[in-house]
Amino acid sequence: MNRSNPNERKTVSRRDLLKVLGTGATGALTISACGERIRPHMESQRADVIVVGAGFAGMTAARQLRQAGKDVFILEARERVGGRVKGGTLAGHPVDVGGMWVGPTQTKLLELLKEHGLHTTPQFEQGKAISEINGKVTYPEGEGSGLDPAAQREYERVVGELNRLSAQVPLDEPWNAPGAEQLDGLTVEQWFRINTRNADALEFLRLGTRSVFTTDPSQMSFLYFLFFLHSGDNFETLQGFQDAAQAYLVKETMHQLAVKLGNELSNNVVLEAPVRQISQDANEVTVKSDKGEWHASQVVVAVPLPLSVRIAYDPPLPPDRDILAQHMPMGSVIKCYAAYPRPFWRERGLNGATWNDSPPTAGFFDVTPSEGAPGILVAFIEAQHALQWTGKSVEERRKVIIDKIVSLFGPQGANPIDYEDQDWPSDPWSRGCYGASMGPGIMTTVAKVIREPHGRIHWAGSETSTKWMGYIEGAIRSGERVVEEVLAELQRAG
Amino acid sequence: MNRSNPNERKTVSRRDLLKVLGTGATGALTISACGERIRPHMESQRADVIVVGAGFAGMTAARQLRQAGKDVFILEARERVGGRVKGGTLAGHPVDVGGMWVGPTQTKLLELLKEHGLHTTPQFEQGKAISEINGKVTYPEGEGSGLDPAAQREYERVVGELNRLSAQVPLDEPWNAPGAEQLDGLTVEQWFRINTRNADALEFLRLGTRSVFTTDPSQMSFLYFLFFLHSGDNFETLQGFQDAAQAYLVKETMHQLAVKLGNELSNNVVLEAPVRQISQDANEVTVKSDKGEWHASQVVVAVPLPLSVRIAYDPPLPPDRDILAQHMPMGSVIKCYAAYPRPFWRERGLNGATWNDSPPTAGFFDVTPSEGAPGILVAFIEAQHALQWTGKSVEERRKVIIDKIVSLFGPQGANPIDYEDQDWPSDPWSRGCYGASMGPGIMTTVAKVIREPHGRIHWAGSETSTKWMGYIEGAIRSGERVVEEVLAELQRAG
Repeated sequence: MNRSNPNERKTVSRRDLLKVLGTGATGALTISACGERIRPHMESQRADVIVVGAGFAGMTAARQLRQAGKDVFILEARERVGGRVKGGTLAGHPVDVGGMWVGPTQTKLLELLKEHGLHTTPQFEQGKAISEINGKVTYPEGEGSGLDPAAQREYERVVGELNRLSAQVPLDEPWNAPGAEQLDGLTVEQWFRINTRNADALEFLRLGTRSVFTTDPSQMSFLYFLFFLHSGDNFETLQGFQDAAQAYLVKETMHQLAVKLGNELSNNVVLEAPVRQISQDANEVTVKSDKGEWHASQVVVAVPLPLSVRIAYDPPLPPDRDILAQHMPMGSVIKCYAAYPRPFWRERGLNGATWNDSPPTAGFFDVTPSEGAPGILVAFIEAQHALQWTGKSVEERRKVIIDKIVSLFGPQGANPIDYEDQDWPSDPWSRGCYGASMGPGIMTTVAKVIREPHGRIHWAGSETSTKWMGYIEGAIRSGERVVEEVLAELQRAG
Repeated sequence: MNRSNPNERKTVSRRDLLKVLGTGATGALTISACGERIRPHMESQRADVIVVGAGFAGMTAARQLRQAGKDVFILEARERVGGRVKGGTLAGHPVDVGGMWVGPTQTKLLELLKEHGLHTTPQFEQGKAISEINGKVTYPEGEGSGLDPAAQREYERVVGELNRLSAQVPLDEPWNAPGAEQLDGLTVEQWFRINTRNADALEFLRLGTRSVFTTDPSQMSFLYFLFFLHSGDNFETLQGFQDAAQAYLVKETMHQLAVKLGNELSNNVVLEAPVRQISQDANEVTVKSDKGEWHASQVVVAVPLPLSVRIAYDPPLPPDRDILAQHMPMGSVIKCYAAYPRPFWRERGLNGATWNDSPPTAGFFDVTPSEGAPGILVAFIEAQHALQWTGKSVEERRKVIIDKIVSLFGPQGANPIDYEDQDWPSDPWSRGCYGASMGPGIMTTVAKVIREPHGRIHWAGSETSTKWMGYIEGAIRSGERVVEEVLAELQRAG
């Protein structure tokens, strides 16, 4: 049972050979009279370590490996560095269409920003927010919930319970939390329903969960959720502005940090080099990308965990890791920006922040630059709502977002000077954002291998971090952790 | 920011070129003095249709396309055909280490078996089963549950309710079932807990669900579960032997059917040809495999749905399809066989069937050949239990299975004449078995695109079937459905 005519041979022209070898942007194919030379990026190259993916995890790892004197290359699938941190332009102003905020306990990221001469500026919150929960519209001050007193009391009680439970989850070994298996068998939605005795409080919990995780509470393990809360300090920190995860924006954009890191590493980064296969034997590891083949002693895979199994591995990955990836889908979010000549909502005493439980968006935020113009609102279409709007045209999303701005902030919203959005699930190298979340029954079983190397292959990426998992901070920390692992291996090998 | 030394070029020996071009089992590499000939399987070939995957879906599609006069190739990653149907040998007897049973309403599979001169034989069930639920051991007759009368009444009431609800789920459009979104937001476990008022009945429902789906009830959407029940007739049919999905074995093994189909298609199947990339433009589609490149008008991808996104697509898949694959992990099962000189359990009035809610296995079955020897027990380590035993050594699994046989059937179990098992999650081309199940919130959103072609790419595989989804029968039906789609496209294109 095999190919029909195994003995049939065809004359292959040089042009066909070119096709077989692939074509690329760099280097011309040169074949001598006897086929002795081929295009250089099809040649194999050598390094101490190959890093797959030039997001914050991969760039952190490469920087520190280089600092330790190692020869390192990052192979990046895209034509840019930064991963889920990405720049855009809105009404001529640079904006972050990917990761953007930084909080006071995200110390590694704050250091890195400082080191690169970038400045933080507080998230604006002076004035009244708009809260739309179960059809009730209220105007709480600052970051207030807008819930009525009974709902607020119940909400605070439940959040207290969440924080109490999450503090018991050991960050290094969440599977050893008290009652781990039972908590892991519940979805977040299931726990919320059983434990919340007020419909508005319940809805506000769901809304907050969708905002933080970009995943529906019915799709996540409750143990995973508790781990994540602990990893990012607690529920209020993940949710809030002041003193919390959304405390500061980067004046020059977060994207500028990615650009600066990329520039420092420019001799070590190969762009448009998606990695297709990683093979290893007793002597080395071979990484095949669309820009050729690299040989190294160790490899760091620093791509989103669910996408890491789309690379072919030889020998294959152990089943635990593959099952983990299968049960850890990316969250879904579309980040939408609208610009106005001025932040007109401020003139009505509004701070631009909204919490909405109805489609299309879970919330708006005012990210007007500190100069005060243009007025910029950012909205996140998250979780189940994103599934409705991903893959649609920008025009369709623009319409629904602008309509929502008009209904929330008034008729001045109808005439933005610009609109941009970033549809993360459509991005073939992220396939979602912010991060990946675990379904039930995974954290207490196969997730135990989340940081376990596969021979010469080491795993980085924010999803592997114990602190600030899913955040830029977590990505940086995962890069630092993996460097320790890799240096120990290099030393062991002599 | 790019490769460090784009201008560096190296002399490449013929041996290096060989390495670049890859080595394979068939065809020797021949390069003329001027590089004019290369190994034939690196050449590009042409067909009307390329089918990816030689499981029952892909082979059905290829057969029917060939019957319709189309030029078709199947590219199969493995060194064998059959997919999740696979043969093994136990004490010198052929056994199915993959799909094995066939039921009376699986009409397409029954026809195919008949057409190929293969024979069915009833699943043995004379005597008493062993039921171990919540620590209570009973010996029900035949397929009896062993539940006490109160638990049995509650179990039957709940199953009646499941059948009533599942009958309301339209097979073509399950997302239009009454209350679809609400049902899709629940896990099966959540619904079971809310609706079952007896601990033993609840445990038996969980056990049955793990057996049928090889997935934990906490990991599946309840709407998806109802759809699946309807797709396979009803809960009792999926669970039962007589007149049900486990009614018959194939005397010559199911694997023999795969072998016969493969032999018929031997001129059309390329083995060990994993497909890595599928690109398409206005004129054609190009399929890149480790055995070279094919050009065709249409492609059928007939691999397990969650694995289909591990192929690189250009242009990329729409986000809905990728999100669907991310939220549809494969189930986990290890199929274990033990052989004895005789079916000694029968002498004690036991029929070899067990239902166990404690690890490692959900159940044993007696699959002794009709000649009566050797005595063969098959066990399935399923769902969460499989996560514990996948990737371990055969010796470790053998020990735990044999210990269980001794504890259930007596000391004679201690001395099998042979033991074999198949660890499906470790298989890099299946990454689980039997099928893939949807998590919450997917069926009512992105699952709507499950059969939607991506340009020239069409989707087959049991997971895309509306009848007997996840079964061999569903695979065959998906192959037939996709042929209609592809022939219509070929006709449209003229």
